[in-house]
Amino acid sequence: MEKRRWIAAVTPWMDADLKELLSGRAQEMGFEIRWFETEEEALETAAECEVLYGMAPKCLAAAKRLRWFCIPFAGVDRFTAPGLVPEGVLVTNSAGAYGPAIAEHVVMVSLMLLRREDRVFRRMEKRFWQKEKSMDSLEGRSIVVAGTGDLGRTCAGRLRAFGPRAVIGISRSGRGAGQAFDRVYPVSEAEKALPEAELLVMTLPGTAETENFLSEERMALLPRGAYVVNVGRGRSLDEKALAARLRDGRLAGAALDVMRHEPLEADDPLWEVPNLLLTPHCAGDMTVRGTRERCAHFFLEDLDNYAHQRNLRHLVSLERGY
Amino acid sequence: MEKRRWIAAVTPWMDADLKELLSGRAQEMGFEIRWFETEEEALETAAECEVLYGMAPKCLAAAKRLRWFCIPFAGVDRFTAPGLVPEGVLVTNSAGAYGPAIAEHVVMVSLMLLRREDRVFRRMEKRFWQKEKSMDSLEGRSIVVAGTGDLGRTCAGRLRAFGPRAVIGISRSGRGAGQAFDRVYPVSEAEKALPEAELLVMTLPGTAETENFLSEERMALLPRGAYVVNVGRGRSLDEKALAARLRDGRLAGAALDVMRHEPLEADDPLWEVPNLLLTPHCAGDMTVRGTRERCAHFFLEDLDNYAHQRNLRHLVSLERGY
Repeated sequence: MEKRRWIAAVTPWMDADLKELLSGRAQEMGFEIRWFETEEEALETAAECEVLYGMAPKCLAAAKRLRWFCIPFAGVDRFTAPGLVPEGVLVTNSAGAYGPAIAEHVVMVSLMLLRREDRVFRRMEKRFWQKEKSMDSLEGRSIVVAGTGDLGRTCAGRLRAFGPRAVIGISRSGRGAGQAFDRVYPVSEAEKALPEAELLVMTLPGTAETENFLSEERMALLPRGAYVVNVGRGRSLDEKALAARLRDGRLAGAALDVMRHEPLEADDPLWEVPNLLLTPHCAGDMTVRGTRERCAHFFLEDLDNYAHQRNLRHLVSLERGY
Repeated sequence: MEKRRWIAAVTPWMDADLKELLSGRAQEMGFEIRWFETEEEALETAAECEVLYGMAPKCLAAAKRLRWFCIPFAGVDRFTAPGLVPEGVLVTNSAGAYGPAIAEHVVMVSLMLLRREDRVFRRMEKRFWQKEKSMDSLEGRSIVVAGTGDLGRTCAGRLRAFGPRAVIGISRSGRGAGQAFDRVYPVSEAEKALPEAELLVMTLPGTAETENFLSEERMALLPRGAYVVNVGRGRSLDEKALAARLRDGRLAGAALDVMRHEPLEADDPLWEVPNLLLTPHCAGDMTVRGTRERCAHFFLEDLDNYAHQRNLRHLVSLERGY
């Protein structure tokens, strides 16, 4: 009798119909998926599983027979420490699933900053009817997107619909222009792009290379009155410098969905910074149905590849960090 | 000696460089523009002026020699009462100037509603870091835009970039499909469109025909969990019915920039309605530079037409209401 091939799935976010779909298809390919809400519940199965699907570091440590680890998120930086993922284990992620949700967040917070909506809403909360006299607009604005992967491209596409003057990318290689970007600078020439960034959108992965990408020096290159939105990783931005530039008015506003220390402590100085919109790392996440569907289908696609011993499509390099 | 031809401009929102541009060009055409911040200051000039430019009903009453009244806004409903504008006076408006600003507001508030951002921000204000588990997205959603003029089309174009399933228009005639809309229903068949409106955006002008467009009966045709955004006129929507549907959860959220009574009184019941985002009629207005530029250029274009006794391009029918 053939031995059962187990998949441990620690995916509390997964919709019932998607679980059913995945279980059925997996069975056809000779696998059984066990679904768990928490890592603790999954530990026993993890010890026996061939495939682990989920943000589950404890299960990873327990999974002695693991062949494939599928991360349902885009960021893999939590797993890049040496030895965390045993050598020889295939690792995939779900980059490409989050673009639409994150782009909606980016457009929303950009418009909230440009239109000074914090002031409007604060007054309306006090039932005080007063219009804002002056607002900015995306129309005619020059936008720079740092990171030209799925997130950056999807943000660029949404933002372009608002009639900006230019949408410029910054990528590792400087490649990636095309429909989404008017032009793309390599990160080595970021200094040429930043003076054009009336709105800077940061979608960078958390790697050694992107650490402190928006340093104090580079921040000084942004035009006066610029806006900064970060949905990548908190480590790519100098938070102290950002706070100072928002306080002295050099920057008009910023929105951070990611910070160096998450969750932000109650006494973190960032809470007090003017014109800074903070959200709890929820731009992407599993909040919208489209994201969950794409994640499930990416897994299914690679399960099919894995079952037929083909190359996995969503393979990542832990060394590179994405 | 030729008599001076006066233009009274009551345009406190106008930028200095645009004033300079308009004054110079007007002079070349034989006109002198006098600029005023308030109606009261303008009254004396108004009595002598040939052209009145501005939202200035008192000046209108005083302007005995008036030939052309240019309204720098899109809505003309304040001037449709019989006798307010003397017969024979040409009336133009600035429809077409507001699309980008209003579309930015529409996308912003739609995303705020869909993404439950009121809850996120309210918690963050208390320094309480908690993600929202479930959000909606524009991706895959069916959107209906009531009003297919400049506002409706511009909103539709921005919203389309987010990957909706369909963008459907409702117009007086049922014409107007094309790039902006997948299809357009005439208002007489609104009942066919409303069940498809997972998001309903209302951009209707304030006319007798649009009065109570979204009645209690029609509201009941919207799908469960729908969202409503109104940037047209407060009179086109039954506020009591909306409040009831938001309270019983039949509608998931609404954003009103326009209301039946503006400014909203401090004891208006609308303030207390859950999932209702209120803004102080500031979606369009003169807040963004692009709007002010377009208004100034529309005026200039028709001043040129007027000076050369050609038809005015931005002529409106006060009888029709737009």
